[in-house]
Amino acid sequence: MAVKKWTLTDTAAGVYVDELVVSPGDVEGGSDGYEITKKTLRGGLSDGVDMVRVNNGNLAFAVLPTRGMGLWKAWLGGEEIGWQSPVRGPVHPSLVPVMEPGGLGWLDGFDELLVRCGLENNGAPDFDESGKLAYPLHGRIANRPAHQVEVSVDGDSGEIAVTGVVEETRFHFSKLRLTSTVTTKVGEARLQIRDVVENFSGSPAEFQMLYHINFGQPLLDPGSRFVAPVKTVVPRNERAVEGMETWNSYAPEVAGYSEQVYFLELLSGEDGKTRTLLKNAEGTRGVSILLDKNQLPCYTLWKNTTASADGYVTGLEPGTNFPNPRTFEGQQGRVVRLAPGATTAIDLVLEFHKDPAEVEQAEDAIAALQGDTEAEIGDEPWEGWCAS
Amino acid sequence: MAVKKWTLTDTAAGVYVDELVVSPGDVEGGSDGYEITKKTLRGGLSDGVDMVRVNNGNLAFAVLPTRGMGLWKAWLGGEEIGWQSPVRGPVHPSLVPVMEPGGLGWLDGFDELLVRCGLENNGAPDFDESGKLAYPLHGRIANRPAHQVEVSVDGDSGEIAVTGVVEETRFHFSKLRLTSTVTTKVGEARLQIRDVVENFSGSPAEFQMLYHINFGQPLLDPGSRFVAPVKTVVPRNERAVEGMETWNSYAPEVAGYSEQVYFLELLSGEDGKTRTLLKNAEGTRGVSILLDKNQLPCYTLWKNTTASADGYVTGLEPGTNFPNPRTFEGQQGRVVRLAPGATTAIDLVLEFHKDPAEVEQAEDAIAALQGDTEAEIGDEPWEGWCAS
Amino acid sequence: MAVKKWTLTDTAAGVYVDELVVSPGDVEGGSDGYEITKKTLRGGLSDGVDMVRVNNGNLAFAVLPTRGMGLWKAWLGGEEIGWQSPVRGPVHPSLVPVMEPGGLGWLDGFDELLVRCGLENNGAPDFDESGKLAYPLHGRIANRPAHQVEVSVDGDSGEIAVTGVVEETRFHFSKLRLTSTVTTKVGEARLQIRDVVENFSGSPAEFQMLYHINFGQPLLDPGSRFVAPVKTVVPRNERAVEGMETWNSYAPEVAGYSEQVYFLELLSGEDGKTRTLLKNAEGTRGVSILLDKNQLPCYTLWKNTTASADGYVTGLEPGTNFPNPRTFEGQQGRVVRLAPGATTAIDLVLEFHKDPAEVEQAEDAIAALQGDTEAEIGDEPWEGWCAS
Repeated sequence: MAVKKWTLTDTAAGVYVDELVVSPGDVEGGSDGYEITKKTLRGGLSDGVDMVRVNNGNLAFAVLPTRGMGLWKAWLGGEEIGWQSPVRGPVHPSLVPVMEPGGLGWLDGFDELLVRCGLENNGAPDFDESGKLAYPLHGRIANRPAHQVEVSVDGDSGEIAVTGVVEETRFHFSKLRLTSTVTTKVGEARLQIRDVVENFSGSPAEFQMLYHINFGQPLLDPGSRFVAPVKTVVPRNERAVEGMETWNSYAPEVAGYSEQVYFLELLSGEDGKTRTLLKNAEGTRGVSILLDKNQLPCYTLWKNTTASADGYVTGLEPGTNFPNPRTFEGQQGRVVRLAPGATTAIDLVLEFHKDPAEVEQAEDAIAALQGDTEAEIGDEPWEGWCAS
Repeated sequence: MAVKKWTLTDTAAGVYVDELVVSPGDVEGGSDGYEITKKTLRGGLSDGVDMVRVNNGNLAFAVLPTRGMGLWKAWLGGEEIGWQSPVRGPVHPSLVPVMEPGGLGWLDGFDELLVRCGLENNGAPDFDESGKLAYPLHGRIANRPAHQVEVSVDGDSGEIAVTGVVEETRFHFSKLRLTSTVTTKVGEARLQIRDVVENFSGSPAEFQMLYHINFGQPLLDPGSRFVAPVKTVVPRNERAVEGMETWNSYAPEVAGYSEQVYFLELLSGEDGKTRTLLKNAEGTRGVSILLDKNQLPCYTLWKNTTASADGYVTGLEPGTNFPNPRTFEGQQGRVVRLAPGATTAIDLVLEFHKDPAEVEQAEDAIAALQGDTEAEIGDEPWEGWCAS
Repeated sequence: MAVKKWTLTDTAAGVYVDELVVSPGDVEGGSDGYEITKKTLRGGLSDGVDMVRVNNGNLAFAVLPTRGMGLWKAWLGGEEIGWQSPVRGPVHPSLVPVMEPGGLGWLDGFDELLVRCGLENNGAPDFDESGKLAYPLHGRIANRPAHQVEVSVDGDSGEIAVTGVVEETRFHFSKLRLTSTVTTKVGEARLQIRDVVENFSGSPAEFQMLYHINFGQPLLDPGSRFVAPVKTVVPRNERAVEGMETWNSYAPEVAGYSEQVYFLELLSGEDGKTRTLLKNAEGTRGVSILLDKNQLPCYTLWKNTTASADGYVTGLEPGTNFPNPRTFEGQQGRVVRLAPGATTAIDLVLEFHKDPAEVEQAEDAIAALQGDTEAEIGDEPWEGWCAS
């Protein structure tokens, strides 16, 4: 038995590990070349943020238990994958005014490669009839620290896993628990996320989830393309209509660029499995997101090719719904219902491609899913899909 | 002289003790079997919360200087007294959005056995004419850290005390200081709180205080009863009217149960001293709260027998007023006025009963206070008592 | 080369120094008698606040990197200069609800000798059309921690400098960076601030800055006077009109005193250099603020001679504008525009005077700037200067 585990945080048991370094010498089995480190960041906006960094020898990535198990950045062969946010993060949740009256405080902490939006809501701010904030932008889960964190290594298979448990709760209101496991294997250019969301209330609950997965340079450059098996694509608003003809390709950076957002329904195999690709202009690099349309039926493409100083970035965002205000999405029935004590799982894979052959292979897989089906391209925002 | 003191925190003097363990070997005198520990919690929502745990050999309890000197939990003969909140606390104040627009952020930190509501207000959220939050639910004091903390042991008498000083201040607005001392004696099943509230402003001030004292299993079970010398009991709203016939007994847990709240005036001795009891269905265990009606003239009973996953709990809540919005209570004159520099003291005792004889004794004492007086049972919310 | 540097914080490099003591033995060169210390405060509202204390042998002062490089207090010859706020700070930003709906949360952290107001706005709270907070009182910069902090000593010249970099950013919104350096020389009764504000966005930006420099006893006492080369002085509102005849002198403390605020335009030399003085009643002590009117064209005098328990204090506040709501100031054009990538510098000197001769010298310098020009004294609030 070559699986070894380390508990980093377990608040119920009073366990908290300040620093940890795991290397092959610590684990039985033949796997080699990997390293796992845990530290707590100090200073600035990051003071107190726990970071677990996994390096499988090829792909490295940093997990943020303090920020709802988000992925801060990844590195492939030593090169950083992610994007340059003007926000100097990772930002500790105590310095992010998520509940400020305008509901946009979430933006103060936004610099991750992968940040979860949810769990009670995942979209634009929503207000009650008196104008008070009811649901903040992108929800609360990214600014909730995990109370349980564990890493494990299987020295035989080379599988490395980081698991964290995060709760989004309010007395009298929802009680939702996220158990997130990110897994990779030694030497692979791939990581896998399995999230389990549990309603631990005695009453039924609803939740929403959206994975806000963000890339800038080097994967995003002028001429980069988004490739997906598209059933439907619809511009979110008039601003998105302006860019409809080039909805799936990317322009050079333009200072003051105003974001363009497209809502998609993807095609999938009969098992619901599907995938999307972002590739650079030369087709020499890319990243695929593999997902299950039964779990994540809605896909949002966020284009923000503004000046690099302001965050030249695109977001590939599979979700349970579109990131409209919670009330609107509820009216459309785009929420996940969970019976008391029920759980639901969501799976997601990120694959990084480092040469034209790998990129082409990913494109072929998408072409096979597209088959003869012609994509339906909306020429204006659709009622029911797009909140006015 | 067998009294020994330890300063745990004194920000003005730059004193802060990370960890402390006090045992009988550290103090002169014959008292034995006790232990005091101080630690700072790490990880999750509790990161940075100071906890002082006192074990008198029979009763143990945990004080939270970081959360306004609240009592987190108690243990009698090793068994936990308190309740199971869905909130995984104790929660650090920096992660509790007390001032969020809807005013309900306090609920994100609610998991204590005893939490103080106050000092500027202690009731439901209150808004100004433009709809902006003026007073948040239950006030700010529970999310203010103490700047001075001290523990002391009298090795002769066996008295153990924890004192903390917490300020609720805002420049241009109120300057209120709480000096709270919780005391117990070796071997007793009892703890005593003396709170002194000071207006350290040069101008007159008003304050409110309510002790939100919460019990779930094992003291609360189906058939548990609340026993008190009642002058008057009034249902807070229509929801409470529904349960009027069983206002002082408890149902089994019911998922989705909506809270029921009753406002009481108690009877007391001529000196103002009075007491209430919560006992389990079998009458084998209970807890008494001893108080002074001159200090705490209003008593609120909160029944929340929802699913245990959501917090099966009752709150026994002696206060200076009823927890209505601040404006309403002010109109009724239910605030405490303090001249510049003036202080006022509030005393409270919690006694835990572990067998039928003790429970019966507590009931007898209450029966004596009730005497021949018949309780006035309101059949609907009263104007002046209940905000509409 | 006798300049030695210590990096205290550099989040990008993972550098964070918990404690530091620098004394002459650590640096080449003949300077002597100084000390620099860095520590992180623990407990109460201050938990986690970094403080850098510089003692040049005559003047000492404490810099707060965690609070936007504010100056907490100063000490001259061992005597404290500053004021006694009822707020027990320095307060960690995570406990200051800057973005609360009413916009006054900033007051919870207000206890510094010098606190910067800015950078997006620096005045009274401002609300959008729906009543939601758009700009909080005095802006966000004082509650943003520096991500880079450095101290340096020139052992030859005796110059000591503390530099910090603080960003006020929000994704999709402004990206402003403050690089602040406070400098002093061994033995001098003077400190110098150079702030550089950079717009690191790819789009144009606007900013505001106001230095809220606050004094109580011993510099402020009954009969103290504010001396300045005045072109114009205008009462902010009716309350200030009441005190117009004594606008530049100070009353004894009066409990419940309501603040009086005056807006000034100063006279200056042709190079824009000008200065103001606060002196005590006997003229035996004082403090001068030297500034450049080209950088800081607007000057606000805040009189708050309330009970000392509530903060007997005056604020001398040079700014880029008057601290009215942001929208009003924008309409008057009182904002600083910065092209993409542009920077602007602001210089400020504080000189402490310890005897009548020094005070007189400062007054003479101001008299020279005043020359024959008669001050224009407004007898009511001016449209365009004062928001109604």
